[in-house]
Amino acid sequence: MITFLSGGTGTPKLIRGMRQVLDDDQISVVVNTGEDIWVSGNHISPDLDTVMYLFSGVLDTDTWWGLRGDTFTTHEMLKDLSPEEFIAIGDRDRAVHIARADLLRRGCSLTEATVRLCRLFGVRASVLPMTDARVTTRVKTSAGSIHFQEFWVKNRGAGEVMGVEWYPQDPPPASREVLDAIRECEAVVIGPSNPITSILPILRCRGVREALSEQYVVGISPFIGDAPVSGPAGALMTAEGYPPNSIGTAGVYSDLLDLFIQDVRDTVNLPGTVRLDTLMVDEQKSRALAAAVLRLIRKRGGKNEGGI
Amino acid sequence: MITFLSGGTGTPKLIRGMRQVLDDDQISVVVNTGEDIWVSGNHISPDLDTVMYLFSGVLDTDTWWGLRGDTFTTHEMLKDLSPEEFIAIGDRDRAVHIARADLLRRGCSLTEATVRLCRLFGVRASVLPMTDARVTTRVKTSAGSIHFQEFWVKNRGAGEVMGVEWYPQDPPPASREVLDAIRECEAVVIGPSNPITSILPILRCRGVREALSEQYVVGISPFIGDAPVSGPAGALMTAEGYPPNSIGTAGVYSDLLDLFIQDVRDTVNLPGTVRLDTLMVDEQKSRALAAAVLRLIRKRGGKNEGGI
Repeated sequence: MITFLSGGTGTPKLIRGMRQVLDDDQISVVVNTGEDIWVSGNHISPDLDTVMYLFSGVLDTDTWWGLRGDTFTTHEMLKDLSPEEFIAIGDRDRAVHIARADLLRRGCSLTEATVRLCRLFGVRASVLPMTDARVTTRVKTSAGSIHFQEFWVKNRGAGEVMGVEWYPQDPPPASREVLDAIRECEAVVIGPSNPITSILPILRCRGVREALSEQYVVGISPFIGDAPVSGPAGALMTAEGYPPNSIGTAGVYSDLLDLFIQDVRDTVNLPGTVRLDTLMVDEQKSRALAAAVLRLIRKRGGKNEGGI
Repeated sequence: MITFLSGGTGTPKLIRGMRQVLDDDQISVVVNTGEDIWVSGNHISPDLDTVMYLFSGVLDTDTWWGLRGDTFTTHEMLKDLSPEEFIAIGDRDRAVHIARADLLRRGCSLTEATVRLCRLFGVRASVLPMTDARVTTRVKTSAGSIHFQEFWVKNRGAGEVMGVEWYPQDPPPASREVLDAIRECEAVVIGPSNPITSILPILRCRGVREALSEQYVVGISPFIGDAPVSGPAGALMTAEGYPPNSIGTAGVYSDLLDLFIQDVRDTVNLPGTVRLDTLMVDEQKSRALAAAVLRLIRKRGGKNEGGI
């Protein structure tokens, strides 16, 4: 069993490759839920959906969100009727949000709701929201503190980023299932996701750092040089006081890493890391990286070999 | 100005005809909201939607609910994911429900939300929910008390009907706009809707009977013989102790009527009524009935002439 810590784009690309070399039932994914948002009465969990759709084979792998071939009939009408409709949601994607919201309103935990939906989608991997508590990642901008989705989707990442904060402030407890998945696996892979808004929300969950400290942890930098492969990681890293590169990424994960992987092209030199091609432009590249990561995990001598 | 009291099928057919002989801005419609239901976080108001879509020219006049040519992508997926999805809701129809729910969640009254939506749909008539309070028509069956929509849509009207009840029990106040529309019009038309679940919920609203007692009121029976033209009115009338025919209908409206119209085919004899062709099988028939009703209203000598 390999357990991933995942956001919504970079790590799912690696998981896509891992599915080619490992059976789905040997993969657990702890998923960031800090970007979850209730819109128009329904529960959107962007990263959970991407991971669930990926395992179900229905993910739109051009955009890395939503269902392949979905239509947007309700959204097209609703954006003229309601100012709340700022996220493009497909019609079938919306059905999933509504179903999850129904389960949550009926008292299911997010973990239980995810198990139910994954079963309906034929997912055999273990997809685990990082916490059952509601926690929201907010971006502090010159115009005030706004929901991450509002910053990234509505405002398209525009405006000066002054930092990140979580609401509520107190770290939520990781679910029991998450802690079990971290403890009872061969290794944990922190995929090439945004360190600040995808991975840090998971690391903040109570119990996660402790569990990781006793586990073999592989990290993969989402940066090549001073730019992330995708998404707003650069501005967010800078605002939080980390250099927007592999050194900063290693700083966020601090003492958790046993093995750190940088891209072969990365101009930032960090001693003790392993260099691999991390630019997963297609499924073959994903598979190659995943196979290399799995080989490194299985060849390891012990804790900290190859670490930084 | 003519003010209608309306449910979701029979009276809208008459209004469709009235639109051919009277400008939309000369029509007010007080609409039953007892069948409103929150499903999956969104607010469905079947009768309000039908009337709004009718005036907007987008109503599906084959089914008399929903938008013409709508798709059902979300519904088709959701009915496999959630037991709550028991009503077929079109994708564009759902956008309207979501937009209304957003407005209500932001503190708009149902009247204000309806004004906003009607403006967006280009509706010039005055479409008025009977009350801004939340009131639900429930059907007492041998299996317990259930929401009208559950009885009629989910269970397809099956099972023994033992009566009707409203929740909350205390009659809600009619909105100020409803009372004004009843007081400040030429006449009120109680259309051929279900007396028990479409019209009685309106008559129960505090202030409505008093306002109607000072107004010229025309009623149109929804029965021809012992059968309603459409819908579950028969069983509901019987359960509430009224004969399921025009006599029973007149009984429900009791002393409010100045003029009562029965179908020319109706085998039930009620003295003092006017006989017209009320079977509105197409737009021409609707227009003919509406024109005849308007002529009767405008030829009236005074209160109670032609009444029962």
